[in-house]
Amino acid sequence: MSRADSTATTARAIRRRELRTLAQSISRIEQDDPTFAPVERSLYGGTGRATVVGITGPLGVGKSSLVSRLIAHLRAIHRSVAVVAVDPSSPFSGGSVLGDRIRMERGDRDAGVFIRSMASRGYSGGIALATRRTVRLLDAAGFDVVLVETVGSGQVDVDIRDVASTSVVVLIPHLGDEVQTLKAGLFEIADVFCVNKSDLPGADQARRDLVELVAFGTPRDGWRPLVTATSTTLPAGIEELWNSIERHERFLDEKELRGPLRRRQALQEILDLMKRRVEQDLLPRAQSDPEVRGLLDRVVGGTLDPPSAARRLLKGPARPRSKTT
Amino acid sequence: MSRADSTATTARAIRRRELRTLAQSISRIEQDDPTFAPVERSLYGGTGRATVVGITGPLGVGKSSLVSRLIAHLRAIHRSVAVVAVDPSSPFSGGSVLGDRIRMERGDRDAGVFIRSMASRGYSGGIALATRRTVRLLDAAGFDVVLVETVGSGQVDVDIRDVASTSVVVLIPHLGDEVQTLKAGLFEIADVFCVNKSDLPGADQARRDLVELVAFGTPRDGWRPLVTATSTTLPAGIEELWNSIERHERFLDEKELRGPLRRRQALQEILDLMKRRVEQDLLPRAQSDPEVRGLLDRVVGGTLDPPSAARRLLKGPARPRSKTT
Repeated sequence: MSRADSTATTARAIRRRELRTLAQSISRIEQDDPTFAPVERSLYGGTGRATVVGITGPLGVGKSSLVSRLIAHLRAIHRSVAVVAVDPSSPFSGGSVLGDRIRMERGDRDAGVFIRSMASRGYSGGIALATRRTVRLLDAAGFDVVLVETVGSGQVDVDIRDVASTSVVVLIPHLGDEVQTLKAGLFEIADVFCVNKSDLPGADQARRDLVELVAFGTPRDGWRPLVTATSTTLPAGIEELWNSIERHERFLDEKELRGPLRRRQALQEILDLMKRRVEQDLLPRAQSDPEVRGLLDRVVGGTLDPPSAARRLLKGPARPRSKTT
Repeated sequence: MSRADSTATTARAIRRRELRTLAQSISRIEQDDPTFAPVERSLYGGTGRATVVGITGPLGVGKSSLVSRLIAHLRAIHRSVAVVAVDPSSPFSGGSVLGDRIRMERGDRDAGVFIRSMASRGYSGGIALATRRTVRLLDAAGFDVVLVETVGSGQVDVDIRDVASTSVVVLIPHLGDEVQTLKAGLFEIADVFCVNKSDLPGADQARRDLVELVAFGTPRDGWRPLVTATSTTLPAGIEELWNSIERHERFLDEKELRGPLRRRQALQEILDLMKRRVEQDLLPRAQSDPEVRGLLDRVVGGTLDPPSAARRLLKGPARPRSKTT
């Protein structure tokens, strides 16, 4: 089979949502297999349809069990859903085997659900790029909703806003001092807050506090984050959470914010790809290229400072700085 | 005063370790003030003398109090010491004001101690670069030891191995499941382990477990991490910790590993600087340059995939790929 045939065959299998091909394809993304690029290129035009929702928050707030309940709700309202867990503490972690086991324990082999965890280290291409590519693949496979579970902001090098159109920040009552310090970062991210484990004491207070904080905060692009509450003993909470997510999605459409959002995300992805190419170009040359070796010698020897070295390496080939600022 | 004069004056004040100039200079680094670059360039030749020690570990293991006790020990053996805290939960956080207060509470206005915290977000130039530049400044100011306190691996975008020559990983007994998942990452980093709060129950076991893990692990560059234990009730532990750090420093010299280490760190810094220049070049052009805008339009419209767009943006000006792999 020619390479073009094989590309077309794989792309077709992905569009048909063949689970084995999906799993293999994500592994190829994780390994940064260059022969997979043509498949992604051929799928690209058919992406951008899925609702991509980020689920983020500190360790221990129960993100994964919340995700499980969201899956159940989405299936009940007849939406297909894929989960990408970028969280080393996620029970979904450990590869698709555990994901499969969880699916089986849930008693289904439902083709409308796909769960995949990504380790948070060791990707040659960087976890942020691998996550984006995986989300795009699941989008191409026609899942209505892609949930991306990550640990809290600043803790993992995936900025959920680069991937998702709606970001849910999950918190629990009495977060403790450590989490307070992360809160500022989480506030910048949240389109929807979810007070999970809301059967714990202090949950009502936590929710009221959040509502108040949100009321005093400055809306971002005209949106004031919604505050919801969920718990295993409060099944209605999940419906409220999903409806809040959908409200934000409608808001993006009504205010024509989806275009600018996609543009921001595309720019960030292109930038990440450019940085990676700079890295892939430079690192081997540190061994093989006398110019780079000479510059390194001088930096280590104290006769050339690192910014000057970086400038020289970008000089010859560097694009001239734009004239406008 | 001409700019050259002002550069020389500032550089001289830094070499003389004038605290006000040091504090102002770090603020200029944090703000990425371009007029500070000549000062750093003129100081560069006089750096590389300080022993730079990373102190890292999960939240809540008592890194900051350990740092305080290390300061006391270092002063007792007549070493000057600067601390750079890159940890949002550090009590040193909140800028130099709090750092000053802690210094005053310690009852000294000791010119042999300097403490500075860096917020972990919002640097235009990136926290990793700002941390390196701050460490270099304190090195130029002649501090014998620079301690860099960061939260555990994978949690903050500063890789301590890019900055420090010896990395101490701080743990406590009974770390809990969440931390176990981070352990693999911490193992890769540690030159010295420190079981802190070693008066807690389970400390002996924790230490024995670590010793065993280290014994079974593969030494990195011929070095097997040392395991120490500290607590507020065990003053001898701090001395043991410092001696272990010095043992690793001597090992680097004896095995001639310091050169390769500096080379790796220089390469990584140059790479980070190049990436930043790519970013500083691209982002304004997303508004002003018709070529970039056109490519973004096509990516958002689904007719051009992001890798192809990145390739085109690097094509004209890109350095030809090296011929060797």
